[in-house]
Amino acid sequence: MSEKINLSLDQVYDLALLALTHNGMSAAHAAAIADVITQGQRDECNSHGLYRVLVCVRTLRSGKVSPDALPTVTQPAPAITRVDAHQAYSLLAFQTGLPSLIEQARQQGVAALVIRNCFHFSALWPEVEAIARHGLVGLAMTPSHAWVAPEGGHKGVFGTNPLAFAWPRPNPTEPFVFDFATSAIARGDIELHARQNKPIPLGWGVDTNGNPTTDARAVLEGAMQTFGGHKGSALAAMIELMAAALIGDMTSAESMAFDQGTGATPCHGELLLAFDPQRFLGDELALNQQRAETLFSAITDQGARLPSQRRFAARKRSERDGVWVDAALLRDIEQLLN
Amino acid sequence: MSEKINLSLDQVYDLALLALTHNGMSAAHAAAIADVITQGQRDECNSHGLYRVLVCVRTLRSGKVSPDALPTVTQPAPAITRVDAHQAYSLLAFQTGLPSLIEQARQQGVAALVIRNCFHFSALWPEVEAIARHGLVGLAMTPSHAWVAPEGGHKGVFGTNPLAFAWPRPNPTEPFVFDFATSAIARGDIELHARQNKPIPLGWGVDTNGNPTTDARAVLEGAMQTFGGHKGSALAAMIELMAAALIGDMTSAESMAFDQGTGATPCHGELLLAFDPQRFLGDELALNQQRAETLFSAITDQGARLPSQRRFAARKRSERDGVWVDAALLRDIEQLLN
Repeated sequence: MSEKINLSLDQVYDLALLALTHNGMSAAHAAAIADVITQGQRDECNSHGLYRVLVCVRTLRSGKVSPDALPTVTQPAPAITRVDAHQAYSLLAFQTGLPSLIEQARQQGVAALVIRNCFHFSALWPEVEAIARHGLVGLAMTPSHAWVAPEGGHKGVFGTNPLAFAWPRPNPTEPFVFDFATSAIARGDIELHARQNKPIPLGWGVDTNGNPTTDARAVLEGAMQTFGGHKGSALAAMIELMAAALIGDMTSAESMAFDQGTGATPCHGELLLAFDPQRFLGDELALNQQRAETLFSAITDQGARLPSQRRFAARKRSERDGVWVDAALLRDIEQLLN
Repeated sequence: MSEKINLSLDQVYDLALLALTHNGMSAAHAAAIADVITQGQRDECNSHGLYRVLVCVRTLRSGKVSPDALPTVTQPAPAITRVDAHQAYSLLAFQTGLPSLIEQARQQGVAALVIRNCFHFSALWPEVEAIARHGLVGLAMTPSHAWVAPEGGHKGVFGTNPLAFAWPRPNPTEPFVFDFATSAIARGDIELHARQNKPIPLGWGVDTNGNPTTDARAVLEGAMQTFGGHKGSALAAMIELMAAALIGDMTSAESMAFDQGTGATPCHGELLLAFDPQRFLGDELALNQQRAETLFSAITDQGARLPSQRRFAARKRSERDGVWVDAALLRDIEQLLN
């Protein structure tokens, strides 16, 4: 075990902000990113915590991402908000478009937020949770890079294409929320097995001939698989269609070609939807909020978990005790301050 | 093999219409149902073809479903159409609400169609295909009866909760479309194995203690499982929330309780969404339709199938040659005409 250092959430935020601004990012972008990195570290999603500072700075230094472009907002239709990120990171674009999405969902009942031309590295749960804090139901999806084969195939077409959903609950800071990749597993897990010369389970990927394999390297050369066979493959295709073709931005294949092998954060778009239960339900709202709570109890009363229970438990611990961060990671981040 | 009889699609439609009206269903409801039954038989989805005439008539005779209630349409918000089916079948309600959904999606960019208080027996693909024929993207979901345990649990909470999606393509009669249950398998498949004393694969269900089992009867007493582990389980929960709590209708658990063990068609609600690519894309529409076609080619060029290719091939055959129906099924339907 490597040495761990305790930091408060404020310290996490300040360190992320400093590392980003020191490397040329504008204050507005750095604040939006530091906020989401702090949420990731707080919830013990370590791959979305302070580690991402390294990834962001590497991408900044590649010169591909704009350090300071300000997002611009348009409303092409009464239920569509479109934010152009102008080749900067997605998070300030999300923050900038969110008020319009909320307003449109309240007016129309349902609305869409389209983010285009953004570099995207973050989990989707902070965004659907932000929608749920307004009492709305949130759904979000993005493509990524084309590492994942369609069911029955052997060449990457889909990204890891995450899908996230949040339903507001009486405690506004703990909605029902899930955020999962439609790939069987994260690409990083396969890379880790390859580095450690460890076999991977069947179902994670296929070799270049499309044969199932337990050889991590063969999968990295071949293609990853979706979760859930043809159903997961169908969902991954839906996400390419909804969060690329419908919004006029790059598919996972186009995004990977655009990257030209630099390994920077992927550049593509994102689609979010918000639904206002008040407009759907009117004076039946309270009754149906209770209906949802009854569903959650039927799950937890039999000993099954709700999707984010572990993350919320980590959140409570971190807010009380701070977080424990790898000393080696902190040294790497401090290197970025020179 | 049982004897098969060739019928034209018109003969299928006329037979379904006659059997339903002869058993007291109004002409408007019978026409909407016969149309969808004909589509099911045409596409060789036999469990959604003429076989459903038997199920509909049994439910009609149970006295639970209204044979003639006319659906009523309201617009609680500019992007929400709500149809009350008044305890009749869902299909006339869908037909009745569809023009308003299309109109709202074209005006607002995205819109929702809520169907409440309906008895629901049909696949969802005919409905999302109907949305796609208008050049819109369609998404649909419903709960069913609470046979499916959450991941990690052992008691039914979710229905088989299907999710369907359609994306319009240049050939308007062949969109990209999928329609899958979020359960690992249809309940009917487990019942068939139980009748034949055949073991089922692991992953279809658990016994009353939550242990994985290959015993079909133990699963029928215990609970079915979702596809795709915790991800499929999360999707099934989302469908309970979106197509029950958000629209103010029964969850799968409530619907099963309402049925009181009669085995009638489930009574619950349905949620459909429509997205207008024209409003999302404006003058970038053609470019992005091409982007979607490039995605489909990347799938099929490597020998993988698009989700509905088999169904569309069956459709072509049936439109040319008619359909082959079990003689025993036809005799059962003819019994209903006495």
